[in-house]
Amino acid sequence: MLHSADELVDPAILDKVRGWRDYVEAKLGFRNHWYPILLSSEVEEGRPVTAMLCGENLLLNRIDGEVFCIRDRCLHRGVKFSRKPECHTKATITCWYHGYTYRWSDGRLTDVIAAPDTRIVDGNRGVRAYPVREAKGLVFVFMGDREGNVPPLADDVPPGFLDDDNFVIARHQVVASNWRHGVENGFDTTHIYIHRESRLIQEGNMVLPLGFAPSQTKSFEISDPEDGPVGVIETYGPHVVPAFEGRVEGETVLTVPSDITGKNLVPSTISMWMPCALKVDPWPSPTTTQFEFYVPIDDTRHLYVQTLGTRATTPEEERAFTREFNNRWAYYALEEFNGPDIWAREAAEEGYADDRQWIDEALFEADENIVAFRRLAARRNRGVQRPADIRN
Amino acid sequence: MLHSADELVDPAILDKVRGWRDYVEAKLGFRNHWYPILLSSEVEEGRPVTAMLCGENLLLNRIDGEVFCIRDRCLHRGVKFSRKPECHTKATITCWYHGYTYRWSDGRLTDVIAAPDTRIVDGNRGVRAYPVREAKGLVFVFMGDREGNVPPLADDVPPGFLDDDNFVIARHQVVASNWRHGVENGFDTTHIYIHRESRLIQEGNMVLPLGFAPSQTKSFEISDPEDGPVGVIETYGPHVVPAFEGRVEGETVLTVPSDITGKNLVPSTISMWMPCALKVDPWPSPTTTQFEFYVPIDDTRHLYVQTLGTRATTPEEERAFTREFNNRWAYYALEEFNGPDIWAREAAEEGYADDRQWIDEALFEADENIVAFRRLAARRNRGVQRPADIRN
Amino acid sequence: MLHSADELVDPAILDKVRGWRDYVEAKLGFRNHWYPILLSSEVEEGRPVTAMLCGENLLLNRIDGEVFCIRDRCLHRGVKFSRKPECHTKATITCWYHGYTYRWSDGRLTDVIAAPDTRIVDGNRGVRAYPVREAKGLVFVFMGDREGNVPPLADDVPPGFLDDDNFVIARHQVVASNWRHGVENGFDTTHIYIHRESRLIQEGNMVLPLGFAPSQTKSFEISDPEDGPVGVIETYGPHVVPAFEGRVEGETVLTVPSDITGKNLVPSTISMWMPCALKVDPWPSPTTTQFEFYVPIDDTRHLYVQTLGTRATTPEEERAFTREFNNRWAYYALEEFNGPDIWAREAAEEGYADDRQWIDEALFEADENIVAFRRLAARRNRGVQRPADIRN
Repeated sequence: MLHSADELVDPAILDKVRGWRDYVEAKLGFRNHWYPILLSSEVEEGRPVTAMLCGENLLLNRIDGEVFCIRDRCLHRGVKFSRKPECHTKATITCWYHGYTYRWSDGRLTDVIAAPDTRIVDGNRGVRAYPVREAKGLVFVFMGDREGNVPPLADDVPPGFLDDDNFVIARHQVVASNWRHGVENGFDTTHIYIHRESRLIQEGNMVLPLGFAPSQTKSFEISDPEDGPVGVIETYGPHVVPAFEGRVEGETVLTVPSDITGKNLVPSTISMWMPCALKVDPWPSPTTTQFEFYVPIDDTRHLYVQTLGTRATTPEEERAFTREFNNRWAYYALEEFNGPDIWAREAAEEGYADDRQWIDEALFEADENIVAFRRLAARRNRGVQRPADIRN
Repeated sequence: MLHSADELVDPAILDKVRGWRDYVEAKLGFRNHWYPILLSSEVEEGRPVTAMLCGENLLLNRIDGEVFCIRDRCLHRGVKFSRKPECHTKATITCWYHGYTYRWSDGRLTDVIAAPDTRIVDGNRGVRAYPVREAKGLVFVFMGDREGNVPPLADDVPPGFLDDDNFVIARHQVVASNWRHGVENGFDTTHIYIHRESRLIQEGNMVLPLGFAPSQTKSFEISDPEDGPVGVIETYGPHVVPAFEGRVEGETVLTVPSDITGKNLVPSTISMWMPCALKVDPWPSPTTTQFEFYVPIDDTRHLYVQTLGTRATTPEEERAFTREFNNRWAYYALEEFNGPDIWAREAAEEGYADDRQWIDEALFEADENIVAFRRLAARRNRGVQRPADIRN
Repeated sequence: MLHSADELVDPAILDKVRGWRDYVEAKLGFRNHWYPILLSSEVEEGRPVTAMLCGENLLLNRIDGEVFCIRDRCLHRGVKFSRKPECHTKATITCWYHGYTYRWSDGRLTDVIAAPDTRIVDGNRGVRAYPVREAKGLVFVFMGDREGNVPPLADDVPPGFLDDDNFVIARHQVVASNWRHGVENGFDTTHIYIHRESRLIQEGNMVLPLGFAPSQTKSFEISDPEDGPVGVIETYGPHVVPAFEGRVEGETVLTVPSDITGKNLVPSTISMWMPCALKVDPWPSPTTTQFEFYVPIDDTRHLYVQTLGTRATTPEEERAFTREFNNRWAYYALEEFNGPDIWAREAAEEGYADDRQWIDEALFEADENIVAFRRLAARRNRGVQRPADIRN
């Protein structure tokens, strides 16, 4: 439930997290960024579908193959078009209530059917229309103001994701947590503790420690170019110390196999990219990469978009990978391994529900890459989505 | 859900709608007006029944044929009498908790059964009791303060409603929208767009355009006497231009029959009356008139009272109309035709939920009669019902 | 639902109840007091169980027979241990998320399993741990700050409850009202009006009036020692005037048997003790005493702990009373007689929901013992539980 106040987060709390104030304020996500919100296959020709992104109700439609996106709210009375979508021409949508009619391409009000010659059709009024791009089987929407100055999609996805030979299979689900708990859980180097009994480890012939002992060396790098993807890259190598043994008050209470002979050493890097994308490379096999997006729906829910990519250039290779995905990774990787991630985010949602945990949290050395991403996001976001942005 | 704050509507919003500030503030309705809240048949002799009006919990009872209404809340501990109504004498109701006993007629505390000689029975204490009138098979309650100075019921219903020869059949249901969306949808001259496929049009041999093109002439008049009903009357005639053809970007996309030869031309006037009553005359046949009330229950619900009246003076005429109502109008008019009105109000409730739409709305020329009623209501109401009125 | 604001009760209301301000503010109960929150039998060896007390989520465990209690919230990310309790050693609990490990006995952070050598384990950090005592088959938790200076349990239970020869049988249930409506209903001398048709009266061969007429003499005494139980004691005797006849406007409308020949005259005293315990002595038979606790769960719920005690020192006597309890009092006294008390509290919860009733209530002479307890509680409590206490 969205608050009605102009502030979603208590300013007294924001004042105490100066290092990443924007990030803590961005309960509804960042504005002026690209987000994947549907599969391409879910937007069919001439069949409007709804979605919610950063607290805004959206309506999408495919016209002659191209996808368009407008706000799902008539100017006149604030009702949703989607209550009874009427498209009397291919290029427009008409509000069911009084016949206010808008163009899909730019949101412009073109006619009011119930009052043919009304002066309200003045060529200036319209609903918001958002830029749309399709890539890798996903529909990306640019949630923002800058129609004439939209950054390329490539700036808002991880490097490599859009590569021509990156063949991607995607799926999504709604998770009952704020999007930032998706980001922080995914990029967390010690949360692997929750995966220690995953069947994927055995199935994938992998090695997975309980976590990592703090090392003296910083294990991550920051990618911060003026143009292009912005993110933090954690590299697994000599500067992290895996823990294969769990101890409590000096007593060994847990051990996991530490023999890495002949095992798949995955991943070598995990990286987090603005606004909300994770890249685990390679994963879950030496020839595949997992890209994930934690897309803000509203303040308490995110769309968890999971994709698995591999190098494939021919239809045969694509079919072969599709079979491998369906027979193996769909269950072992995306379902069984990531299952605990989902309820960990839901548990964190409860912990951070009143925002006090942002100042009470007891972070430790292993959380430094997360903190680095918070700082980067607070500095490089293109705007915080605020309640006033949703209304106007 | 009622807010606990003293202000139901953000004062910053009220300041921007100066022309009809009271109307926007009146989320719980207007105070010191008459409202129909139950059918007469629903209040049986000696059987207390509950109702909610303008956010207040009420309890009604019929005693020797006369209906009485008090607030459903004991002074002592704030509990509801209706949890376990106890009437040890015909004229009183006793709270189940400690035996605080009140008179139905004036709300006066007469006794405390559990403590016979308590000084709290001092002849001055009591719960609120509201004036009640029955007319046309409806129970009207005066939600207000002015026991000694109550305006006549005739001032708060449309002209003609109380006429001796107006034979009325009524029904009601709860609608999940603020009462003002009932008022504005009912009095809206272009919302008929949503009715264009109604079976009633065919059944009633009617003609109904898609809407009305703006005309140069004002099509409504204001009734604003010192005593008597206060309202806005929209007359259909040469000064409104019906639209039988719907166009989008120059293309004709919809047509409805425009041949009016031999058709029933209904209605000739639609009028809206303080505090919340619509009169459609004639409708749905040349010999019937529809009167409707959109009665505030609380801030998000209203009681939709539908009545159909006709001229009938003998029992035979009344029986004949009752048959006609049951066989024809109950379904075609009140159910099938008005069905879309109900979900249009629910859709508007969503649009106006945080009250911002009152300043963001994109009204057009055809909404001028609605605006006229807003101004009139803001000027002629006898008080705004506020959270403090409910509590004290 | 807990409010997120720092004030649970509007300060404007608190300012108007100066005589017992702390009491009205203590929506979440009083801090630094002992409360029974579980039966001893519900805390099994090595099986952590949750409870909520005064708005705080708690986790309890029995280790080598002794019960311990900590806060159910990891310092790191604010998640609940109870989502997946992991006890890798008998003395500790480990958070499922990153392996933060805490000692049950003092809450101290001892290890982080996923990062063996982290500097966050500095010997100073920990979660709150609360003192626990077991008595009479109940687990009492001290909800407070003063680890080194905890008052004896005997100060927070009614006199006699802990007596060696007081054999007690207890049960509990959650009631949907604030704890104070439990306190006030239990100690209310005229609420017996709601019990007038109880089967217990007949079964127990008792006499119960409709209530009590106000007498000129104060019928209660205050126990207010520096150490030891603090409470108000209402004694039934010549200074209260029982009402056996109910009158409304001079007419007799209710009578209950007033012949006390051969009847069990119970109770002789009813007393209310800090923080939330009632003693009815004797009740429901001349040889038993009912002790009740109305334990704050959060602002809208309390744990209703009912106990019946009798003098028993041998296993035979205890077995005999257990049979008597199961065959007779469990149903007639705790279930049938106290049933209306529960829904009376729920009704009062509705009446006091927005706290205005604290200043609007129409108390009468018979409520003077309740007012005396309010004043005493406002003066002798060891702290008000506030939202900030729950968070930090």
